Amino acid sequence: MSEIDHRPGSQIKGGAVFPHRHLLGIAGLQPHELLFLLDEAEQWIDMNRAASKHDGRLEGLTQINAFFENSTRTLLSFEIAGKRLGADVVNMAAATSSLKKGETLIDTAVTLNAMRADVIVIRHAASGAVGLIADKVDCPVLNAGDGRHEHPTQALLDALTIRRRRGSIAGQIVAICGDILHSRVARSNILALTSLAAQVRVIAPPTLMPPAIEELGVTTFTDFDKGLEGADVVMMLRLQNERMSGGFIPSTREFHALYGLTAERLKRAAPDALVMHPGPMNRGVEITSEVADMPGRSAITEQVEMGVAVRMACLDILTRRARKVEGWA
Amino acid sequence: MSEIDHRPGSQIKGGAVFPHRHLLGIAGLQPHELLFLLDEAEQWIDMNRAASKHDGRLEGLTQINAFFENSTRTLLSFEIAGKRLGADVVNMAAATSSLKKGETLIDTAVTLNAMRADVIVIRHAASGAVGLIADKVDCPVLNAGDGRHEHPTQALLDALTIRRRRGSIAGQIVAICGDILHSRVARSNILALTSLAAQVRVIAPPTLMPPAIEELGVTTFTDFDKGLEGADVVMMLRLQNERMSGGFIPSTREFHALYGLTAERLKRAAPDALVMHPGPMNRGVEITSEVADMPGRSAITEQVEMGVAVRMACLDILTRRARKVEGWA
Amino acid sequence: MSEIDHRPGSQIKGGAVFPHRHLLGIAGLQPHELLFLLDEAEQWIDMNRAASKHDGRLEGLTQINAFFENSTRTLLSFEIAGKRLGADVVNMAAATSSLKKGETLIDTAVTLNAMRADVIVIRHAASGAVGLIADKVDCPVLNAGDGRHEHPTQALLDALTIRRRRGSIAGQIVAICGDILHSRVARSNILALTSLAAQVRVIAPPTLMPPAIEELGVTTFTDFDKGLEGADVVMMLRLQNERMSGGFIPSTREFHALYGLTAERLKRAAPDALVMHPGPMNRGVEITSEVADMPGRSAITEQVEMGVAVRMACLDILTRRARKVEGWA
Repeated sequence: MSEIDHRPGSQIKGGAVFPHRHLLGIAGLQPHELLFLLDEAEQWIDMNRAASKHDGRLEGLTQINAFFENSTRTLLSFEIAGKRLGADVVNMAAATSSLKKGETLIDTAVTLNAMRADVIVIRHAASGAVGLIADKVDCPVLNAGDGRHEHPTQALLDALTIRRRRGSIAGQIVAICGDILHSRVARSNILALTSLAAQVRVIAPPTLMPPAIEELGVTTFTDFDKGLEGADVVMMLRLQNERMSGGFIPSTREFHALYGLTAERLKRAAPDALVMHPGPMNRGVEITSEVADMPGRSAITEQVEMGVAVRMACLDILTRRARKVEGWA
Repeated sequence: MSEIDHRPGSQIKGGAVFPHRHLLGIAGLQPHELLFLLDEAEQWIDMNRAASKHDGRLEGLTQINAFFENSTRTLLSFEIAGKRLGADVVNMAAATSSLKKGETLIDTAVTLNAMRADVIVIRHAASGAVGLIADKVDCPVLNAGDGRHEHPTQALLDALTIRRRRGSIAGQIVAICGDILHSRVARSNILALTSLAAQVRVIAPPTLMPPAIEELGVTTFTDFDKGLEGADVVMMLRLQNERMSGGFIPSTREFHALYGLTAERLKRAAPDALVMHPGPMNRGVEITSEVADMPGRSAITEQVEMGVAVRMACLDILTRRARKVEGWA
Repeated sequence: MSEIDHRPGSQIKGGAVFPHRHLLGIAGLQPHELLFLLDEAEQWIDMNRAASKHDGRLEGLTQINAFFENSTRTLLSFEIAGKRLGADVVNMAAATSSLKKGETLIDTAVTLNAMRADVIVIRHAASGAVGLIADKVDCPVLNAGDGRHEHPTQALLDALTIRRRRGSIAGQIVAICGDILHSRVARSNILALTSLAAQVRVIAPPTLMPPAIEELGVTTFTDFDKGLEGADVVMMLRLQNERMSGGFIPSTREFHALYGLTAERLKRAAPDALVMHPGPMNRGVEITSEVADMPGRSAITEQVEMGVAVRMACLDILTRRARKVEGWA
């Protein structure tokens, strides 16, 4: 399944194949480690499609989802992932959090740790907040999105979707289009896809293109039509509501005219190019319904499905050390 | 237990006795199907009264409660029902929903489906929204109340309460009183009770009486006292807060004077008439505390208990096909 | 482990050692009953530190956490406690509660009871509200904090922390400092610690000292420095945000100067005095970071850990009668 054998001669096994305590980002992960995560996710896709979706390997473990920033989809995905693995899953709601009482983030982290959490999944509006927490706790921490920094499980689920639909990631021309500047999804995807040898193009209006982004090994375009030319995968980003009325774009109407993916425009990509979007979509803004729902081309629903599988794999792998799985203890 | 034998000569079995994929409303259900649901609920009443309340038949199944409209009681009831059956139950909070980010309802539905939900319970403020979702997903959908349309499990729990307390539904004179116009509870109850051969009367101020309601086979009254005459069951509806200050009623005080159920007024009903209310009650508005708490007469608490049992039955029955229960696969 | 043998000659066993149906407060509990709860909590500390944290004794039981007042930490602690014991745990969110629809507290309680809850954990802003609910339900009720009245599990976890860190509770000089007037934590701690023969001092500005508090067997101080003299345990209270801007204290700056625990001030206490805080802390107001994080002295994190263990013990013990545990049925 993998393009790179991450266990050459089966010499790398157990914990050695993924020696990281946390999953804070794609940065710092080796290509064979990324592929290991994708390979492990495959088994959960099958289980999730079965009538009974239960595996008891996380029984007796407490998973705390600490979402300081609202996210219905990602929270649901992690909650379902943990429960299907048998964990005791507890959500800490941001809106009612002690943080509102003036407690520091570190104190909250130390509190969750003292309750003997076995894995903590965190989303936070501040870049780096998740790493800060990871330094203070004894259990693995999973980044579910922190500021403009990273959203590693989104990149993993996107990579898995591409690999399954296109057969491979290496060599694929992937065009990522939209608000690159503010997007942790774009950032994690660029890191993962370039690491796995895809040719990554980023397309954005000049105001939404990060400076020096080329250093990450991508080609930049401000002209959507040119950037789409021959692309195998077109990955649209969500235009955040707060940008729509800001100074970054003149209007959603103009944004759509210049950077919205239409069926007409999609013709510039490869004939069988895959269309992706992390959701939730603004239909009619960054993508038209015709493209979003195009049979055989849109992989948007599959991305959601891959999300649960990838999160199950990450929860499983990161807790193996504590569970004393053979080769990981 | 049933008044109608819904399995004549045991010839109708398994899936044939309840061939519906979803439970979207009482409309479209046959009397023997309604009675089948009530009969199935009986077993859960007993289990819920026992020291241990667990049955593993939904183990490995993911139940998503997607409440786009707040409802503490109904959500609790469905959550408890699913957990007692062993399902992995996940709540999707409306307040933090992706819908707030501009996502369409259909996209949310498709997302829940892609996470491989096995049953989705939905409450939504728009009539028909639940049916719309049901069309887009692969799993059974349970309507927990949609706009002014239907609230089928409420009607089922009310029917079960009446059957247990009065011995039968057929032939009972049931007076439903209050804001009939806006009430999905009234609508589902009218459909269920007339289908099961009760004599249904509806009592409301002219501004809160739906036009042409007689076509559903009910008798209408604008005079509460006349409508109560000899009733076996008096079912009061909740006066929604938003009506109280609207143009529909002059004042809650006047509403109470004309349409509030008092002990004095209850004397007009049958001597042992049952008092029901779907909750939460506005004590002193549509019902006095004396009546709400009247021993031997008020069935309000029992309605809540029947709610859990009815919802367990619905969750069980609707998932039988996927669980490949013999005769249902 | 206990200082007092609560099972003299093993003659007191089972339900006789803890004959209470509810845990509404420390008031009314005998010293040997308090010690029994602490002793029982010890086993859960060990389990919670193990790789797998699961005990099935509450399987088939429904625990409802009804938090009418927000509290992230306490809710998390009770939710984790119940799930580790195998209960079906359901949270009733205050913000979306039927109470908002005008329902009375009693009606909510009766509703939870009708759903056949096996144990209800309640937090409420009104003193006595929890006791009111306990009178109306058939299952054990656990007070998770009611108004200015009591917060018994907080006192128990504090007592357990002191016993483990100081070897004993009897004879310890415990200084409780801060907003004694409004604090249910202070009140429950005073009751528990005096009952277990600690010497309790309370330290507060005159505006935040309850009248006649000496009747509870404590010594009062308005001078922090004098109250600290030789204390074995310094228990700081949280300064509630709503007090900070009220007429009770001149300013948080002045409060800190007079009643904030600093490293310098801590020197007045016993050389190895323990520092405690129920959290969440206002660092720099009632306590400095230097003290809060002082190695070997601060027990603040341990308090959180003891909280889960104490709550597991309470949930276990209170449900023994219903579970027909030998000697308790």
